[in-house]
Amino acid sequence: LKHLWIERPERSVRTGFAVNRLDRLSERRDDGAFIDELRCSEGARSLVFAGEVPVLKRRGDAFEPLFTFAEVDGLGIAAEQVFLGHDSTRPFFATLLETQTPEPAQGHRDIVMIDLRSVAMQGLVTPDVLGAFGQAKSLLYWHSRHRFCSNCGAPNRMVAAGWRRVCDVCEAQHFPRTDPVVIMLVVSGNDCLLGRQPGFPAGMYSCLAGFVEAGETCEDAVRREVFEEAGIATGRIAYVASQPWPFPASLMIGCFAEALARELSIDTRELDDARWFSQDEVRLMLARAHPAGVVTPPKLAIAHLLLQEWIAGEIGLNPPR
Amino acid sequence: LKHLWIERPERSVRTGFAVNRLDRLSERRDDGAFIDELRCSEGARSLVFAGEVPVLKRRGDAFEPLFTFAEVDGLGIAAEQVFLGHDSTRPFFATLLETQTPEPAQGHRDIVMIDLRSVAMQGLVTPDVLGAFGQAKSLLYWHSRHRFCSNCGAPNRMVAAGWRRVCDVCEAQHFPRTDPVVIMLVVSGNDCLLGRQPGFPAGMYSCLAGFVEAGETCEDAVRREVFEEAGIATGRIAYVASQPWPFPASLMIGCFAEALARELSIDTRELDDARWFSQDEVRLMLARAHPAGVVTPPKLAIAHLLLQEWIAGEIGLNPPR
Repeated sequence: LKHLWIERPERSVRTGFAVNRLDRLSERRDDGAFIDELRCSEGARSLVFAGEVPVLKRRGDAFEPLFTFAEVDGLGIAAEQVFLGHDSTRPFFATLLETQTPEPAQGHRDIVMIDLRSVAMQGLVTPDVLGAFGQAKSLLYWHSRHRFCSNCGAPNRMVAAGWRRVCDVCEAQHFPRTDPVVIMLVVSGNDCLLGRQPGFPAGMYSCLAGFVEAGETCEDAVRREVFEEAGIATGRIAYVASQPWPFPASLMIGCFAEALARELSIDTRELDDARWFSQDEVRLMLARAHPAGVVTPPKLAIAHLLLQEWIAGEIGLNPPR
Repeated sequence: LKHLWIERPERSVRTGFAVNRLDRLSERRDDGAFIDELRCSEGARSLVFAGEVPVLKRRGDAFEPLFTFAEVDGLGIAAEQVFLGHDSTRPFFATLLETQTPEPAQGHRDIVMIDLRSVAMQGLVTPDVLGAFGQAKSLLYWHSRHRFCSNCGAPNRMVAAGWRRVCDVCEAQHFPRTDPVVIMLVVSGNDCLLGRQPGFPAGMYSCLAGFVEAGETCEDAVRREVFEEAGIATGRIAYVASQPWPFPASLMIGCFAEALARELSIDTRELDDARWFSQDEVRLMLARAHPAGVVTPPKLAIAHLLLQEWIAGEIGLNPPR
């Protein structure tokens, strides 16, 4: 597993859900006997979800996210069980319970359900386990929404330890879905553009973002979204970092984008507000010290990393080639 | 539409299917009256597909890809019709015919079907139209495989001018899918690693590649795929360019990756062969002049761009930060 343990020099590693040292053993997923053997091994552990919410064991002030399979059985019937990978000592699985509200089983009065954003924000688990939780949540959510074949409508079934579904009627194969999203800090001299979506926490401003569509490069998606949402044309674009984002299953592709104009034309169906912020303002926002109470997204969000790097002068928008 | 016409400085623009100047007017897609008005306008044109294959009009030695809606009606019944966007003069749609083998209609004995790879390789249409063809193919393929709700199995229906499907039974909404794929040139000093998949044209070697999975950053996906396929651990990774790839609907994310080892361990289920190539060899391969007859992928592939940039010394693998 040496490749999984190297020091990762890229900026992506500083985002939330981005630490994941599991060896996925993807070439063994179709080997049912091998996966069963892993599952029955002494050290095997499972993360557990009820609906979209992680189930945890409370241990005093701490939380234990890993269940033995005997403990999982005590929580209820498993709707899906997927293999996440193997760390340096043991195999990790994830279980989606059939019930969305598990009755704490005998001897498990210490069972709690805490939504994954809170688990992440409050640092209730190690970064490695948080990465595995993100992986599990995206994969289990996909299963929960793909029990039927989109090609013919028949019920389908999970295979490959959770990494494929097959339809026995039309023989279609379906693979877990990951949606690429561009998220960009638009910069203009010493200012950057941040916006507020309806539903953001009070005072929070963040980078603009949107799904990459069919027929687009990352750069084209950045330009389209910035123009649609804020009316700003953009020129040079630089990749900064990426992040797996499990709400429900995106790959966030973080970029800087050079504004070619200053005058905003805000799409008020998408954004409550958007405006230019100076570097001094952003420093205060990152420090939670802005006099107007405006703040950046929290540290686990890739928008936070983009703002930090901009403040540090690491924007990489070199002249056109 | 000024934002769509700026000179794009990034390397992505040099890949195939990456030129697309259509304004998608995504905020108007749900306005059925507006979309109908566009469709009925004098200048409206449609690309046409029968199954996965573009339909073209032969005009002597040239090919005309744009049909009026009267012409489309002459080709057969439309299974799906989607709005691609508006160029500087007129709206573009794409039509998927119900039949996979259209009978040339009266007055259309000049109709031909040519698969999209050949259209691209042979340069049968302008780069702008090729970009629109890629957009259309990915979107129409998604519709053809998603006529039923994956959440409940009921037939669903297309809305938003082709950019969403809704289920009237369970009310699930489904959005077109784009799969992020990492494709990487692994470099070690003056050598790079290229492999051959079964089914590649004779003599062709290309970059390793694979789908980004749930819970991964781009960089983690690069490291996993290179280790799985070739047994090589990788360190620093640098984004180079991206490309929409319509076979069927990927976003190719092109990177350089620094090899931390030289000894290959090839997964023979994925690759027929993989080996190190020197810069001198790659120069000959790009020029189609290698004495052993080995060649790079064609110019429209992002692998070609990665190799060109490597030869030019533009690898951007800076020291760790």
